[in-house]
Parts: sequence; C-alpha cells; structure tokens
Amino acid sequence: MNEKYQQLIEKLRVISDLGAIGAVLGWDQATYMPQGGAAARGRQMAVLGQISHERATDPEIGQLLDDLQPYLSELPDESDEARLIKVAQRNYDRSTKVPTELVGKLLANGAAAYSAWTTARPENDFEKMLPLLETTLELSREVANCFPHDHIADPLIDQSDYGMSAESTRKLFAELRAELVPLVQEVTGQESADDSFLKRSFPIDQQKELGEKIIRQYGYDFTRGRQDLTHHPFMTKFSLGDVRITTRFDENEFGDGLFSTLHEAGHAMYEQGINMAYEGTPLANGTSAGVHESQSRLWENLVGRSRPFWEHYYPYVQEQFAEQLSDVSLDSFYRGINKVSRSLIRVDADELTYNLHVMLRFDLELEMLEGKLAVRDLPDAWHARYESDLGLRAPSDSNGVLQDVHWYSGIIGGVFQGYTLGNIMSAAFFEQATKAHPAINSEIGQGKFDTLHGWLRENIYQYGAKYTAPEIVQRVTGSELSIEPYMRYLRGKFGELYTL
Amino acid sequence: MNEKYQQLIEKLRVISDLGAIGAVLGWDQATYMPQGGAAARGRQMAVLGQISHERATDPEIGQLLDDLQPYLSELPDESDEARLIKVAQRNYDRSTKVPTELVGKLLANGAAAYSAWTTARPENDFEKMLPLLETTLELSREVANCFPHDHIADPLIDQSDYGMSAESTRKLFAELRAELVPLVQEVTGQESADDSFLKRSFPIDQQKELGEKIIRQYGYDFTRGRQDLTHHPFMTKFSLGDVRITTRFDENEFGDGLFSTLHEAGHAMYEQGINMAYEGTPLANGTSAGVHESQSRLWENLVGRSRPFWEHYYPYVQEQFAEQLSDVSLDSFYRGINKVSRSLIRVDADELTYNLHVMLRFDLELEMLEGKLAVRDLPDAWHARYESDLGLRAPSDSNGVLQDVHWYSGIIGGVFQGYTLGNIMSAAFFEQATKAHPAINSEIGQGKFDTLHGWLRENIYQYGAKYTAPEIVQRVTGSELSIEPYMRYLRGKFGELYTL
Repeated sequence: MNEKYQQLIEKLRVISDLGAIGAVLGWDQATYMPQGGAAARGRQMAVLGQISHERATDPEIGQLLDDLQPYLSELPDESDEARLIKVAQRNYDRSTKVPTELVGKLLANGAAAYSAWTTARPENDFEKMLPLLETTLELSREVANCFPHDHIADPLIDQSDYGMSAESTRKLFAELRAELVPLVQEVTGQESADDSFLKRSFPIDQQKELGEKIIRQYGYDFTRGRQDLTHHPFMTKFSLGDVRITTRFDENEFGDGLFSTLHEAGHAMYEQGINMAYEGTPLANGTSAGVHESQSRLWENLVGRSRPFWEHYYPYVQEQFAEQLSDVSLDSFYRGINKVSRSLIRVDADELTYNLHVMLRFDLELEMLEGKLAVRDLPDAWHARYESDLGLRAPSDSNGVLQDVHWYSGIIGGVFQGYTLGNIMSAAFFEQATKAHPAINSEIGQGKFDTLHGWLRENIYQYGAKYTAPEIVQRVTGSELSIEPYMRYLRGKFGELYTL
Repeated sequence: MNEKYQQLIEKLRVISDLGAIGAVLGWDQATYMPQGGAAARGRQMAVLGQISHERATDPEIGQLLDDLQPYLSELPDESDEARLIKVAQRNYDRSTKVPTELVGKLLANGAAAYSAWTTARPENDFEKMLPLLETTLELSREVANCFPHDHIADPLIDQSDYGMSAESTRKLFAELRAELVPLVQEVTGQESADDSFLKRSFPIDQQKELGEKIIRQYGYDFTRGRQDLTHHPFMTKFSLGDVRITTRFDENEFGDGLFSTLHEAGHAMYEQGINMAYEGTPLANGTSAGVHESQSRLWENLVGRSRPFWEHYYPYVQEQFAEQLSDVSLDSFYRGINKVSRSLIRVDADELTYNLHVMLRFDLELEMLEGKLAVRDLPDAWHARYESDLGLRAPSDSNGVLQDVHWYSGIIGGVFQGYTLGNIMSAAFFEQATKAHPAINSEIGQGKFDTLHGWLRENIYQYGAKYTAPEIVQRVTGSELSIEPYMRYLRGKFGELYTL
C-alpha cells in the first residue's frame, strides 16, 4: 500500500477518534450527566472541538492529499482507496475553506441564538430572535460564499446531502407537493381515525421492553449498541462496534416512544451495517442526511406502521397491554397509528402531511438565502405557506416559525431537505427490495426481517460513504431519484385506509 | 492578577479538561459500553492520552513556571496562588523528567503484563509472569532513577503520597504491625462471629436503594454526581460539579455492595467538598492517595460499621428486609458485619487484618526495588510473610502473589502504602472531629451527619491539593501522623466485641 496513503489513514483515524470522543461526551450529557456537570462539560466539549478542528485542518493532510493525486489517478474510480481519498479531500476542503474566525462567529452566534430561543419560543417572542436570526442568515451566506456554487444554498445542502442542489431538490419537491397537497385534502376531508386509545396509561418499562424486543428482531445488534433514555431521541456512534440509540417515553402516548425507537434503530442499523474494514476512516459514516433518514423512516414507517407488521405484533401487544387495548381491534389500532390530520407541528405530523411541513421550510430557507425574504417578514411568510399548503394558521409564532430549533442553533440552509429526501428514498429502496425478494412483505407478517435487512446491508449499508447518495439511488433503482415509488406507496397505503 | 499566572491557569485548565474527558471514556467503558465498543475505545483512550501527554509536557508551561519564580517568591507561602504554582511545578516535573520513550515502554509492558495476568491468575502460573514482572521491576527502577532520591522507592511513593518516604512509611508500618499482629492473634483465638445471614438472598434493587438513601444522608450530592453499576467499584470525577461513584452488588453478599457504596461515597464527598474556585486547576484534586483513602474508610468503617450507626439504621433495614433479617438481632448483625478472620485475600479482609495484607506487600515492594528480593523468589517471600503475619499459607499463587492487579499493571512501588496510611489517618481525623464536636457520635446514632461532614469539609475537603498530606495531618492533629488514634479506635471497637 502507498506509504502516503498509509500516513493519511493514520491522520484520519485520529480525527475520527476525536469525533467519537466528542460523541461520548454528548451522549453522556444527554443521558446520565447530573446537572452540576453542565458548565464543565461545555468547556470540555469546546476544548475537544478546538483540538479536532486543528487536526482536521492540519496542513499536512492537505499536503498528503496533494501528493496522492498521481496515485489516485491510477486507482480504479470505484476502489475503496480512491473513494476514501475523495471523501477525505471533500472533508478537508470543508474544514479549511471556511476561515477559523468565521467558524468562531458562527458558533458564538449559534450558542447565543439557541439560548435566546429556549425562552423566546415559550414566550412567543420572535422580535427577540430577529437580530440574532439576521446575523445567522448573514453568516450562513458568508459560509456559502466560501465555496464556488451555482445557487447560494448549494454549498450548505452539499454538507448534509452531497450531490443534491437547490435546483434538483426544488424540482423534486415541487413535483411532490403537487401530488401531496390534493391527496392530503382528499384524506382529511373524510372522517378522522380514532387514536384516543393510544393516550391511555402504558407503563414505560413495558413500552421500553416492547421496543427493544422489536428492534432486536429487526436486526439491531445489542452487542454493538444499547438504548438509553433522553429528552430528544437521537442515534450516536462511537465506532462501528458501538452505535447507540436513545429514546423518550410518555406513559400517555403509546406510539411516541415505540416509533421513535424504531426510527433511531433504523439510523443505527445503517451504521452497524457499514463494512468493518472502513473503521476509523471517513467512509465509516452514512453517506448523506437523506439516505440516513431513508433508513430511519423505512424501519419506522414502511415496516413499523404497515398492516402486515401489526398483523404479526398486535396479538402480542394486546396480550402485553390487555387492560389498555383489549377493546381495540387490530383494524382500529392500525387506523389509529396511521391517523392523518392537518396539524401545526412538524414533529407530531403523520406520514402523509409531514413532508408539507418540511418542504415549506426548505422553500423559506432558499428565499432567505436568495435575499428575497427578509428575516423580519419570515413569520408572515410562514403563516401564508401553512395556509396554502395545510389550510391552517398558527395562533402564535410559538407554534409557528419558532417551533424548530434548526435555524436557531447556528445556520440557515441545508438543514431540512434531508427529511423529505429520506422519505422519498425510503419508498424507492423498499420497492426495489420487495421486487428482488417478493417474500419480504409476507415475512414482515411473520415478524421476520432477515431478507429485508440483508438486502439493505448488501445494497446500501455496507458502502458507508463510499458512494454518494445519487450514486446509491442510481445503483439501487437504476435511475435518478423519483417521487413515483413514494407516491405509489402513499396511495397504496392510504388508499386502503381511506376512499381515494 | 499576574498575566503569566493567568496564562498558566489557561494551560492547566486544558490539561484538566483533557483528563476529565479521559475519565468520561473510562467511566463509560466500565459501566455501559457494549462489548463491540472495546477495541475502538482502547484506541480513543490512547489518542487522548497522547494529546494529554503533549499538553502536560508543553515546554511553554515550563517557561511560564520559570518566569513565575520571582512572582512566587513574593507571594505568601500559604496563598492559593503560591500553592497552585508549586503543585503545577511538581506535576510538570513528574511529566517531563521521565523520558517519553520510557513512558512508552512502561505502558507497553504494563499492557502486556495485565493481559498475561488475566489468564495467569486463574491458571496459577507465576512462571508466565516472571519475565514480564522482571521487566516491570527494571522499568520501575528506571522511572525512580529519573528523580533525585534517598531511597529508590521514594519517587514512586511521592507520586501518590507526596511528602511520605520509604523511611517514614516503614517506621510507621513497623509500629503498626507490632501492635496489630498480637491483637489479631488475640481476637482470632476467640469464637468467630456468625455472618451467615449476610449470604441470604437480598434483592439488588433494594440493596441499591438502601445504599443511596444512606449516602444521601451522609451528604453525597446527587445533583453533582450519580451512582452506576460496574464490575470493580470506583469513584471518578469529570469536574467538581460531576463526581460519580460506581458499585457492584451481589444478591448473596449483603455487606459487599453496601459498604462499597459507602466507601466510594467517602472518596466522592472529598472531591465534592473541594473549593469550587479551584475548578480546572491542579488544586482541584484530593491531595494524596492516603488522605483520599482516609475519607473512604472513615465513611465506610468509622461511621458505617459503627454501633451507633446501626442502632439507627438497623430497625429500618430489618423492616426493609424482613424476610431475611427478622431473626437476626441488632447485636448479631453488628457482630456479623464486623467479623474478624484471618484470610488469604486482601480485598475480602476485615478492618483488623486488612493492614497486615497491605503492609507485607509494601515491604516486598521495597525489597524488590532495593534489589534484595529477586522477582523469582517473590512467591516464597510472599508465603513466608503470610505465615509470619497471618499464620496462613495460600494453597496456590492464585490466592497468593497473583491476587492483586497492581504489580501486573505497570509498576512496582508506591501503589500499596496509601491503603494503610488512609486507615491510620481516618482514625486520627475522626478523633479530632469528635474532640471538636463531641455530639458527633450521638448524631450518627440519629442518622445525622452534618456536623461531621461540615468539619471534614472545613478542615480537609475544601483545600483539595493545596496542602500536602503531612501538612493536613499537622494542621488537623497538631502533630505528625501517629498510629495511636488508630490503635485506640481498633482497641475500643474490638475490645467491646471481643475479650481483650
């Protein structure tokens, strides 16, 4: 093996390890840390962040990458080594092209904005956020301008969904919205499903046990992971051998904890499925926010909210929660967990309306970055879009433009598209899996997931970041990303639940 | 404030934070980490260790310390600033005087020895350890020779018990042994206490709850700490606001988990009691292994195994564990948890015989370092000492010279004396506390610990590493460390339990 390549690998491994160490600090902070540890933990994370930044921008890495160009040109394009060098180059450029001073401003403003937001949201005080958010927008534009681009949002989208652009995403979303808005109108015009039984009292221990039983059967490997409780569920990775999930349970919301567990397990199974030979390299990561979300949503929704899944699990669940669910039929339960309703809050939205929430945020982000929408006018623009897309108006900014933390924690741009790209991909991938193995649906009806999991590992997971998201889509579906499989899935599922 | 001093503080804070980050990694490794995370965690700890070492040996620290000499000479000797500079100088010398190459050899040999020991102990194979242990001894001598000294063990003792020497420790231990050996003979010649009831089945949840209830009453602050389960109990600190303990419970050993909880809480209360203004500096640590152990043993034994303590808690414990303890009187219980018996294993030893185990190890360490005892002859020397001090001979090296991990994890010298110094100090401090506040004993009999805890905070805890152990002893007792208070304590306690 090339000696410079070996040196590069060594340096990248240290960067990866430092990132993992930061992840351990973050995990502990969100799960077990006593309140007294907060101040020092912030300081420790800052110290580590600075050391990580130093290592990630080490000019010796730039030199090694330059020196490796002749070697790279001789490697087959699809070799692991060639791809690793390219991803390392991308990461190095991202870390070095934004001046350290600008990174510092972004972090400082992000911290101030987040802190202000924690009180501004409950106090319905958008005015308070205005100057901070204007700075965020300005800094976000500055960051984007550090990179060559067609559209100002492209470099920001690139960071989380490499290979997508403002234009390609906008086109896809326009197609999706054109289909979704009338579909949502059709469904919500009909009698609403009853899900009141989900709000009965379900002991948290039992909920946790059920979730763990299911994800174990999914194929989440507890010898290389674990589940802990937190306030805002997330997946985190300390190495390919240690991929953890966190969940939150509410005694009076049966679905919340369970589907969050399935969701995070989907993220985690993706990471656990990456080729172990990539450990410690930049290939040992999910390739994009969109592909990551495709896996969380696939296991949460396409599998976990499907009829065959509940045909198998419901008798067991009904037995475990006899007191709460004995009067609820499988059909009522299935309708309940798939209840569609137009609502104001993204994170509480059902499978059908969810993307409307996401896409309007994406559009508003672009308009702000383009300079077509002033931050001052954001609340009105927000209301207008909720009225046109969902036929609703939030009674306050708390339930409107202040609801999501994303814009208030540092950057505007590139933070929302992954959610909907993931949904679109989830159906495209699942359709291919069931085409290759038609037995998958009946296996789900028996609580068996090996074929599906194996197909996902073979076609997606193992590659980590070796292939970009568009490449993965092309390899798996044979064409560019299209909304058709997703719309087929939604029409099929909700067509059976409602009269379409 | 002096500008150079400020710069020094900044650099020391980073070293402290890196140490804390390493502690988080270690804590997670010992509590929650799934087995799949082990390999990467080792790598992450090594990466962090290297960065910590770089920072701790940063020549700029040496320069700042040199530059601060004139400033130091003008400071009052007992000012925080003067003491901080002195402790920083000591740490810097320790980190820089041992060549990096030697540190590397020590770590590598330590890792190899530890790995070999994990199988050599169950296989009773001292021969296998012989070459590794010979290297350990050689390297330990090399480390010691990096520092000026009177006795070869002094620099090693200095690392954990600064201010003590081979000579002063030997003298103290000789006095203690002269008193203890006949006392143990006298006690073990009498009818043994019955402690079979401690081996009944005690549900672990209830054991944990009881331990936490008691240490909360002790004054361990759960908003600045927590307790988790592990294999080998320890205390760890991530900041003065986050001092955690870990414990292990055995359903059939009632005392083990409880007294381990009280022991670790003692360590933790010491750290929690340090002046918050010292946060992030080298003063924010317990001052020596001995003083640390004095606090774990004080809360475990002098308080937690005392008669007034159990007069208060036993009725409650008997109520909680009615099935297991209803036929056991307070007196039988008290005798059971204080049962004295000559045994082969240090960690299972009672309060009276424990120090005999420790002191013979200390003596053997010195003899090896002095070149008077060859590693090859260590097993025989071990047997000889167990026969002379405890009247026992281990049937195998597994229960003999192979039982403790200390020598097999990197160094010979300076690792055992702290246990017995701590016991000696615990009684010296407790005697002073009760002299100052005679009500302490009756308060313990009411489950109240505020006066004792307050006195310890005021006289010991708050100072962290500001005063050395000999200074603390001098300040608190008005004289040098003496075994008299400890012997008074042991004779008083065991004189009441046995006929002396």
